[in-house]
Amino acid sequence: MSRDSELKDRAQKVFPNGIYGHLSTRYMPENYPQFFTSAKGVRMTAVDGREYIDYMCAFGLNLFGYGDEEINKAFVDQMQKADTVTGVSPVMIDFAERFTGLVKHADWAIFVKNGTDATTLGAMIARAHTGRDKIIIAEGAYHGIAPWSAQSPEGTTAGERTGRIYCTYNDVESLERAVAEAGDDLAAIFATPFKHDVFIDQAEPDAVYARRARELCDKTGALLVIDDVRAGFKLARDCSWATVGVQPDLSAWGKCIANGHPVSALLGSDKVRKTAGLMRVTGSYWCQAGPMAAGVVTLDRIRDSDYLENIQKLGRQLRTGVDAVAAKAGVGLRQTGPVTMPMFLFDDDPDLRKGYFFCAEMAERGIYMHPFHNMFISNALTAADVDLTVAAADEALQALAKAGAGLEPNQRIKVA
Amino acid sequence: MSRDSELKDRAQKVFPNGIYGHLSTRYMPENYPQFFTSAKGVRMTAVDGREYIDYMCAFGLNLFGYGDEEINKAFVDQMQKADTVTGVSPVMIDFAERFTGLVKHADWAIFVKNGTDATTLGAMIARAHTGRDKIIIAEGAYHGIAPWSAQSPEGTTAGERTGRIYCTYNDVESLERAVAEAGDDLAAIFATPFKHDVFIDQAEPDAVYARRARELCDKTGALLVIDDVRAGFKLARDCSWATVGVQPDLSAWGKCIANGHPVSALLGSDKVRKTAGLMRVTGSYWCQAGPMAAGVVTLDRIRDSDYLENIQKLGRQLRTGVDAVAAKAGVGLRQTGPVTMPMFLFDDDPDLRKGYFFCAEMAERGIYMHPFHNMFISNALTAADVDLTVAAADEALQALAKAGAGLEPNQRIKVA
Repeated sequence: MSRDSELKDRAQKVFPNGIYGHLSTRYMPENYPQFFTSAKGVRMTAVDGREYIDYMCAFGLNLFGYGDEEINKAFVDQMQKADTVTGVSPVMIDFAERFTGLVKHADWAIFVKNGTDATTLGAMIARAHTGRDKIIIAEGAYHGIAPWSAQSPEGTTAGERTGRIYCTYNDVESLERAVAEAGDDLAAIFATPFKHDVFIDQAEPDAVYARRARELCDKTGALLVIDDVRAGFKLARDCSWATVGVQPDLSAWGKCIANGHPVSALLGSDKVRKTAGLMRVTGSYWCQAGPMAAGVVTLDRIRDSDYLENIQKLGRQLRTGVDAVAAKAGVGLRQTGPVTMPMFLFDDDPDLRKGYFFCAEMAERGIYMHPFHNMFISNALTAADVDLTVAAADEALQALAKAGAGLEPNQRIKVA
Repeated sequence: MSRDSELKDRAQKVFPNGIYGHLSTRYMPENYPQFFTSAKGVRMTAVDGREYIDYMCAFGLNLFGYGDEEINKAFVDQMQKADTVTGVSPVMIDFAERFTGLVKHADWAIFVKNGTDATTLGAMIARAHTGRDKIIIAEGAYHGIAPWSAQSPEGTTAGERTGRIYCTYNDVESLERAVAEAGDDLAAIFATPFKHDVFIDQAEPDAVYARRARELCDKTGALLVIDDVRAGFKLARDCSWATVGVQPDLSAWGKCIANGHPVSALLGSDKVRKTAGLMRVTGSYWCQAGPMAAGVVTLDRIRDSDYLENIQKLGRQLRTGVDAVAAKAGVGLRQTGPVTMPMFLFDDDPDLRKGYFFCAEMAERGIYMHPFHNMFISNALTAADVDLTVAAADEALQALAKAGAGLEPNQRIKVA
């Protein structure tokens, strides 16, 4: 029995049903390891000793590489002085000044732990600010696991679910219909920076849709909230809708803002400052200073380095290279969304059997990819790593072409 | 202008209304510093250079002392190997095995970040498990800031608030009335281990009340949930209601379980395992390995050391010492609740002017106390520290006795 399997058995006993959440390999191809001993840059070593180039980046945390020495040193130095104590370390102010300096719409920050904390606080501030209840979110969009937005109804009450109205992302008419449905009870329109739902092609934001969302908010007094938790700083050195010329009232951030150290943030404009200042916002670890010190270094590097141009270049190299080997193999592979957040889906693949086969083949070659969730380009990736990846994809896609119609149905997941 | 005031001015600009949450000094006596440069053991150094013996322990995080070297080394060693990556470190299993080994009712664990995550997940699992909506909580009890339990209504919807029914802690009749009101829609009874609300005397749990809560849950199929986030491991090396012989179905933990490193937990029994295994529970940093490594060392120390007897002894020394100097000064000072979580309130002090005066005097003498929230005894405190504290209290209480009826009304906070 492999060490990974042994650990899975132990995990099955002390967690309700094994490892939970988005880092579980329950829905990944069978040959994906669950447990890792170390990670550095873009490489992770599994407990059985195999090394992988990781295109998931812990779902977007790893922007400057696992174990970045300068960022981790800032973390450790601050932690050794004061981490979470009965009071606040000055670095919390430095971090907020850096953040509001980078993000144009932002005049203030509130630091929290989870991305869900940031989106939920955004919803609550919008409701408090307007005195209204309804929040418009796009079907299929993920804004965290709190009851107000949860995609699965388990454990939520009808009363919790009635606060939301759905629209279709990038569909102006559906947005207008949702606003009409909210009537005089509209608190906020939420939007992800681009359509990055699981299972389907990604879609860049339509500027007309984005501008209409802004107009509808201005007209009704509702707030526009961008959920930049996943995509933040992967499209722009600003809130992501800056790319379509639209500024929100609130934006939610997390994941890479301290290169994976645990801190998330809600940023807001002066228009909402008074309400935000009246809210009861608190969490045991929300003023933890270590992640803020890591965040200062991270944001300085975002502001001052060419990381964005570099991950765009690496993303284009990957997209072009994989397109070429897919064409060579005669496989219909769709790559959608921004190049810094790649998504691979296969034509005529309703149960994702092709995607799972492809990812399993890639894992055999030491490349960790995802069959139905967008991936991430880290600044620690190199052109040589991408070359290795494209070479692996070349073999994996040829194997897929050969397997052809003989692929077994996918038993690992039911696609909605 | 002091460095603390300078920083407060900067904070006022980049946060909605200055430092937010429970670590804000907005509601503390005016001479309390907001910003600290370092902390070690039970001592914190403010940015203006003054040192304080800290009785707040970051609101319960500091059980074994700030900057504990063994615990921090475990954290840093794990973080350098792998912190949050695309997968899980084996130490997550070790931590869950230690935790479920210590807490008798627990067969499984789910690790989260905030205490609010743990209580909210408990509420959601209870609702999913029973298919019902109503949750009974005691008036004045704090179970986090999520809309389902939030004490202040700002930003919550009517639909979110209808899920809860209030009872009076330790009042069996009120509990039975609440159960009757829930009818066939009761999902859970929540309880804090003892009554540790702000502003009022603390109260130990009545064993009759605790047993009745257990019986009512068994009778109705609802779940009993203990919120041990604040008090966990300060009363017992088990869930806190073990002290009254009652085992819950779920318990929520946080704060000190990794000596302040950011991890919280929901623990549950096999009865609820199936439902818990079906829930969608996930957060960007929930599998962060560093805090789990710190948690393993912390839980081993909780299991194997005499920390509990030691903090009880220190707590008794403080209680006895302060009682004596209060009697000597002729000041009516009430100390309530467990000795490991001291609460000081003064007789005939409706607006807390005496409490604020006392705490301000203590701060002048280098002792950081709280005028309306329970405090905490850290295992890093020493008998000599308590002697210093009692000596300071002697002077502070004499000053209070002298000030007598001449005290100004308290402008810092409105007591509910």
